[in-house]
Amino acid sequence: MLTLYYAPNTASLATHIALIDAGADYELKRLSFASEDQRQPAYTAINPKARVPALVTEDGVLTETPALLAYVAQRFPATKLAPFDDPFAFARAQAFNSYLCSSVHVAHAHRMRGYRWADEAEAIAAMQRKVPQSVTQGFELIERELDGPWVLGERYSICDPYLFTLAQWLEADGADTTRLPRVLAHRARCAALPNVKRAIAEEFA
Amino acid sequence: MLTLYYAPNTASLATHIALIDAGADYELKRLSFASEDQRQPAYTAINPKARVPALVTEDGVLTETPALLAYVAQRFPATKLAPFDDPFAFARAQAFNSYLCSSVHVAHAHRMRGYRWADEAEAIAAMQRKVPQSVTQGFELIERELDGPWVLGERYSICDPYLFTLAQWLEADGADTTRLPRVLAHRARCAALPNVKRAIAEEFA
Repeated sequence: MLTLYYAPNTASLATHIALIDAGADYELKRLSFASEDQRQPAYTAINPKARVPALVTEDGVLTETPALLAYVAQRFPATKLAPFDDPFAFARAQAFNSYLCSSVHVAHAHRMRGYRWADEAEAIAAMQRKVPQSVTQGFELIERELDGPWVLGERYSICDPYLFTLAQWLEADGADTTRLPRVLAHRARCAALPNVKRAIAEEFA
Repeated sequence: MLTLYYAPNTASLATHIALIDAGADYELKRLSFASEDQRQPAYTAINPKARVPALVTEDGVLTETPALLAYVAQRFPATKLAPFDDPFAFARAQAFNSYLCSSVHVAHAHRMRGYRWADEAEAIAAMQRKVPQSVTQGFELIERELDGPWVLGERYSICDPYLFTLAQWLEADGADTTRLPRVLAHRARCAALPNVKRAIAEEFA
């Protein structure tokens, strides 16, 4: 049994979808960011980073979405969610997810988490004003290489739920979605998948 | 033959060290950030992200340090630079590198690359003022779990050159290194390795 600590409308959705895709036996533990559950000792004892997701396994706790997605794929190999047997193909998948994590998600985070990188209210407001541009630019790099139907081409992989999750925030971030038709088509394709629908329903159950 | 596009004093050093550790046949292509080589069409044709590192392989170009490090380890398995045969251990390594990339390096980047996240000079200055605190906090999370001698314990891995590379910037970032004795000891341990010395010498050759 795996236990996923998550919060609604966060990156934890990507791992949640992958667990369903993999046919994993899992349970969910919901945190409320509004109540700052993630900063309470009961949770920081599990994940000192005070963030989600965290996945409790029989061997210990794992964090960081790219690592969790690869773990789910490797632990449940039958569903072939990542091309482990091909170092180049696997590296491409890892590079995609690493870019989402370190560039795209970081650009987005400057809208609601600017306090991580500056103290002054005016500086935080300046960061928020830049988010539409930086998020659009981050996704434009994806747009130009997204041939589809899935991120890696013909085969659905751990890259798809992660891109889908971050793409859900485009409008709230003020991104120029007219420049991202392939990203929007990919998002709609994912949103129609039964496993994605189930994960979203479970988040709010 | 692998070709690593790099710039001195950047995260590309981690992949460079790993290539040496792996016994790979590689060549280096140096970019000057001062000359903005990374934004020239000759390079953005290779890496549209206009960043380093980029690794040109027989199969195509790869980017993103965590992906490159895992690629080097998987492509040259004899040196056992990552625990691929154990999903949990491999996920721990990936989580560590993902955290370096998306949190620690991002905190550091607010000192010299604040223009990515705000336009106004005052906001960029505010970000710079926060860097000593945010970088220290990022490394403190590593400090508490760094039992040594290496990041994953007894065995040197792809996590070590990456941590070493980012830890080189602690003083310039104004971090409080008195709170990071294990990180400093790890840095010194890496700096004494022949492969690390060779990589640094080659960067400036």
